[in-house]
Amino acid sequence: MERPSEHGGGRRGPAIAGDPTSFPSDAELARTLTAGQRQATLCTLTADGYPYGSVVSYAVDGAGAPLMLISELAEHTVNARGDDRVSMLIAAAAPRDGDPLGSARLTLLGRLRLADDPATPRAAYLERHPYAAAYVDFTDFSFWRLEVEKCRFVGGFGHMSWVTADAYRDAAVDPLAEEAGGIISHMNDDHADANLLYATALARLDDATDAAMVGIDRYGATLRAHTPAGPRLARVPFPAPLQRAEQARAALIDLLQTARGQAAGGQPPG
Amino acid sequence: MERPSEHGGGRRGPAIAGDPTSFPSDAELARTLTAGQRQATLCTLTADGYPYGSVVSYAVDGAGAPLMLISELAEHTVNARGDDRVSMLIAAAAPRDGDPLGSARLTLLGRLRLADDPATPRAAYLERHPYAAAYVDFTDFSFWRLEVEKCRFVGGFGHMSWVTADAYRDAAVDPLAEEAGGIISHMNDDHADANLLYATALARLDDATDAAMVGIDRYGATLRAHTPAGPRLARVPFPAPLQRAEQARAALIDLLQTARGQAAGGQPPG
Repeated sequence: MERPSEHGGGRRGPAIAGDPTSFPSDAELARTLTAGQRQATLCTLTADGYPYGSVVSYAVDGAGAPLMLISELAEHTVNARGDDRVSMLIAAAAPRDGDPLGSARLTLLGRLRLADDPATPRAAYLERHPYAAAYVDFTDFSFWRLEVEKCRFVGGFGHMSWVTADAYRDAAVDPLAEEAGGIISHMNDDHADANLLYATALARLDDATDAAMVGIDRYGATLRAHTPAGPRLARVPFPAPLQRAEQARAALIDLLQTARGQAAGGQPPG
Repeated sequence: MERPSEHGGGRRGPAIAGDPTSFPSDAELARTLTAGQRQATLCTLTADGYPYGSVVSYAVDGAGAPLMLISELAEHTVNARGDDRVSMLIAAAAPRDGDPLGSARLTLLGRLRLADDPATPRAAYLERHPYAAAYVDFTDFSFWRLEVEKCRFVGGFGHMSWVTADAYRDAAVDPLAEEAGGIISHMNDDHADANLLYATALARLDDATDAAMVGIDRYGATLRAHTPAGPRLARVPFPAPLQRAEQARAALIDLLQTARGQAAGGQPPG
């Protein structure tokens, strides 16, 4: 998702228009990113003390802890048997021609431990990775869990923070996450007029000439508007957080009615 | 690329048909993979000894060493200032619904050092990452080089090896790498008959009913054939390694003529 800079990003653009306080927390963004991916880099320690990166597939337990099915023969397993301190880098897909450093990613630091109840990880893992049924029962494969101690979240340029293990565990995955791409495409393909009205009437970018939706989550929508002074990001909150993806359509229509009211001469609330 | 198992993969399928000795070396595959990607995971050591994974963009110098443009403010830079032992995981894109563990990847282990001649990395880096012009001159950004000490290459299930720093440095990037995807699509879309004849006449899969090209490099082509006994991989070598991608068309036509000669009753060579 796009979002203004919190640290050092002032040099990269003006402040966001609308309500920048309505973004999800970094803990929520982190849980949502973890839930949305299935492949990551596991970092372990070699016997001679080098950090070692390798590809792993993972599923997620109810507390956001990654579950892995790995072989005793693999380097990372040998490493973790020697020292259980690990991290996992989970990255959102970068745009094909854009800067990968503009995309969200997170590093979960913690301990890699054998799962003490393999039945639970097995079900979650095979649901996410059905092809793993071909080797799940090989005797050299076991389920392991990353017990998260802390989390570094990077939302993009200049947006980064440390998230505690408690905050990460307690945060909710965004209920709109799986549908967001489709909603955004629909709004940009069929409702450019609504996007522009959100930007002008609700985020008060009066001179915007065009706006595209670039993000949506339970708390609101993010727009990128063109203005005579250049591109601006704008954030438009929902009146109350959504609980389910199916509520997005009605919420966007409600926002549009509010925007039309503003545009027709109403005063902005508050 | 697809290739038979070298280690532990016997349980996963029969031996390859044709000439399995004609594959590129793992050092060549590693150099080719490094050259073909632009984003990786850098693994560094935190002050309290955890391995820390983060996203980096990179370019490659003439010896296959990754060049990075990183900020003094970033965690990985702080970590590398404290301990220069690092690794970089470079992974080929996984198929959308397939098993990520079937795709090629490599881990370069070594030391992260400030580039002593920033002009050379700058040119190579900006060619690969033009958007970095927006921050290349920020005073907190510098060019760093990963000085490779050894390399772990994983070609897919059961195909893995350690590659020495010398072997990695001295290996050539495959000259067909950038064109391979287009050549494979063309052969599968328009020349299914040729693919089948390669499999039956050259790789001696007499009962193959269908074959698709799944890889091509300077040394030859790899096919996946359907046979009554199940799918089989087949490897068909070129008579001599190609030097340039433009030679692939003529080489494939020559192979086809050889295959037609075999099919018409000639004896297989040697």
